[in-house]
Amino acid sequence: MNKKRRYQIGVMGSAADVKYSKKFEKIAEEVGQRLAENNCTVVYGAEKDYDSLSTAAARGAKKAGGVTVGVTYGKGKDIWDKEGNTDIIICSGLERGGGREFVLVNSCDAIIAISGGSGTMTEMLVAYQLNIPIVAIAGTGGWAEKMAGEYFDSRKRMKAVAAKTAKEAVEKVMSLVKEYETKR
Amino acid sequence: MNKKRRYQIGVMGSAADVKYSKKFEKIAEEVGQRLAENNCTVVYGAEKDYDSLSTAAARGAKKAGGVTVGVTYGKGKDIWDKEGNTDIIICSGLERGGGREFVLVNSCDAIIAISGGSGTMTEMLVAYQLNIPIVAIAGTGGWAEKMAGEYFDSRKRMKAVAAKTAKEAVEKVMSLVKEYETKR
Amino acid sequence: MNKKRRYQIGVMGSAADVKYSKKFEKIAEEVGQRLAENNCTVVYGAEKDYDSLSTAAARGAKKAGGVTVGVTYGKGKDIWDKEGNTDIIICSGLERGGGREFVLVNSCDAIIAISGGSGTMTEMLVAYQLNIPIVAIAGTGGWAEKMAGEYFDSRKRMKAVAAKTAKEAVEKVMSLVKEYETKR
Amino acid sequence: MNKKRRYQIGVMGSAADVKYSKKFEKIAEEVGQRLAENNCTVVYGAEKDYDSLSTAAARGAKKAGGVTVGVTYGKGKDIWDKEGNTDIIICSGLERGGGREFVLVNSCDAIIAISGGSGTMTEMLVAYQLNIPIVAIAGTGGWAEKMAGEYFDSRKRMKAVAAKTAKEAVEKVMSLVKEYETKR
Repeated sequence: MNKKRRYQIGVMGSAADVKYSKKFEKIAEEVGQRLAENNCTVVYGAEKDYDSLSTAAARGAKKAGGVTVGVTYGKGKDIWDKEGNTDIIICSGLERGGGREFVLVNSCDAIIAISGGSGTMTEMLVAYQLNIPIVAIAGTGGWAEKMAGEYFDSRKRMKAVAAKTAKEAVEKVMSLVKEYETKR
Repeated sequence: MNKKRRYQIGVMGSAADVKYSKKFEKIAEEVGQRLAENNCTVVYGAEKDYDSLSTAAARGAKKAGGVTVGVTYGKGKDIWDKEGNTDIIICSGLERGGGREFVLVNSCDAIIAISGGSGTMTEMLVAYQLNIPIVAIAGTGGWAEKMAGEYFDSRKRMKAVAAKTAKEAVEKVMSLVKEYETKR
Repeated sequence: MNKKRRYQIGVMGSAADVKYSKKFEKIAEEVGQRLAENNCTVVYGAEKDYDSLSTAAARGAKKAGGVTVGVTYGKGKDIWDKEGNTDIIICSGLERGGGREFVLVNSCDAIIAISGGSGTMTEMLVAYQLNIPIVAIAGTGGWAEKMAGEYFDSRKRMKAVAAKTAKEAVEKVMSLVKEYETKR
Repeated sequence: MNKKRRYQIGVMGSAADVKYSKKFEKIAEEVGQRLAENNCTVVYGAEKDYDSLSTAAARGAKKAGGVTVGVTYGKGKDIWDKEGNTDIIICSGLERGGGREFVLVNSCDAIIAISGGSGTMTEMLVAYQLNIPIVAIAGTGGWAEKMAGEYFDSRKRMKAVAAKTAKEAVEKVMSLVKEYETKR
């Protein structure tokens, strides 16, 4: 791996149509902020119609002066974030619901999952299939909660590493990316 | 919808590296055969390195004189099936592990899941996100078993309809595609 | 290559927003018809908003009792063809304008180009880059005319083989697919 | 458009297997450098096997302290650039030869083409189809030379704006992105 490139960490989580509490939004922002403080680039799924925990992580990263990349679907760069929390927009050209998510996760060195519905579970499964380390924050409900500490199938290739807090999630993801890098 | 086009039904299930019993392979073949008898096109995930329950369904469909479409990854049409059970090969140009699976499911009117690891669960989640009906065969283990009769997230958009046998799965998928067609 | 699979021949050409004469439409239909008579599957770019020379080829193929595959963009199978000239619809999940076209060409054993604007030239270039043989019908204007008998860059990997009529185009494409198959 | 986001300008040009002179490599580097000086993010096609004019532009941008994004094919982030000239790597999951190129161009606000074979022409055509402004440097040979000042088809939607030098190319691309932004 290119020694000078920052780690690219994806933050995955519920979209606003799933409804999530202010508390989980705070966790997502804290994850983004801590990743930025650890000199990581935050990669997130940029929506065009509403907010998400993934977008909240980008907001947190920018508060801490970090770098953010939003991966969106279809064409057109007019994403939901108008506040300028997205340094780079990638238009995957693929539809949302699995296609865009594939490009998003494929571009990450590791991912952190918070709560999450079908999209977040898809993202964890893609990461598993691509051998990209996963940290899932327990206590946030949804698929992240269900998968924390679990394997994704009987191949038992790797577990979603469980974390209890934003702090622990970022610490664990940092050690995972370093470990995986050495293996390569 | 084009009135003359046959329904395109995807059959999703474990790949051979997950290991599955002869019994589940028989179920997959029977699903393929029954879909062909119901005048459906069987859409399956064509691998380049090994067999799968999805491929077994294509075999079953051809035994019954059906039409099969294999959706593969990357480029190059040299797929694992050398017996001629694939009428049409689609090269998605996308990597396996979520990308190819997205094109595969997106091209189906409905899907049937049998047993299945991370790939099959990804395919069910894509179907859910794209509003494509899903039948999951209970008693086959894996993610199909876990999801049979369940919603995929708190949006509760639709359940994976549970079936106990190949026969029931095909009956249920036929009524689902007709119902969804009317709704459109 | 799978011995029993029919050759999958793509027919590429102008979309209706470019405007083309009835004469070129006839050529496209004849190409489709002759491919069907030669036992080929016709692969075409299925639009959702208007007709195209590619769609005309599918019409011709169906008149001759052939098999047709329409590769469309985005999601949703509601394509422009309502007459039932499409046996199988593939939803690439990718946007039109290069993405869908990539899946389309990647799924062909060879392509025939008729007239054509930017989309058709993109398709010829993709074929060239993927080492998929190309026949271009001279005398139909557009990029097919410009490229007939020409290389696509200084690599001189292969030429667009020139043909003057639908008949000659299909004869040449049949000998090209057989030649390429032997080389593999 | 997000007011704070830097313009994302793609630099497209021959890959090293086409062979290009030191002179053109210098032009590409100068384009990258000038884009960085104009506060643009340089988006380039990251190869895994060899150098390219696109990669040269990223080198130039980094010399001037700019930000660079490399869009690569398939999976795996082990790209040709080992010097650290790539701030962010996007893995498109799509094959090279049209697929990766689509994600690359779709993620640009405008592109500059230098010399170039089939890949560069594909990229200009994708830009044309997606309504993304194009500057082509005349005098560099290849498709950039052929298309400088020309329309891409009879739709005459837009021309590849001709430039004679790296300086002029960057000046023209800056005025084009501003003009297109206003139109939106």
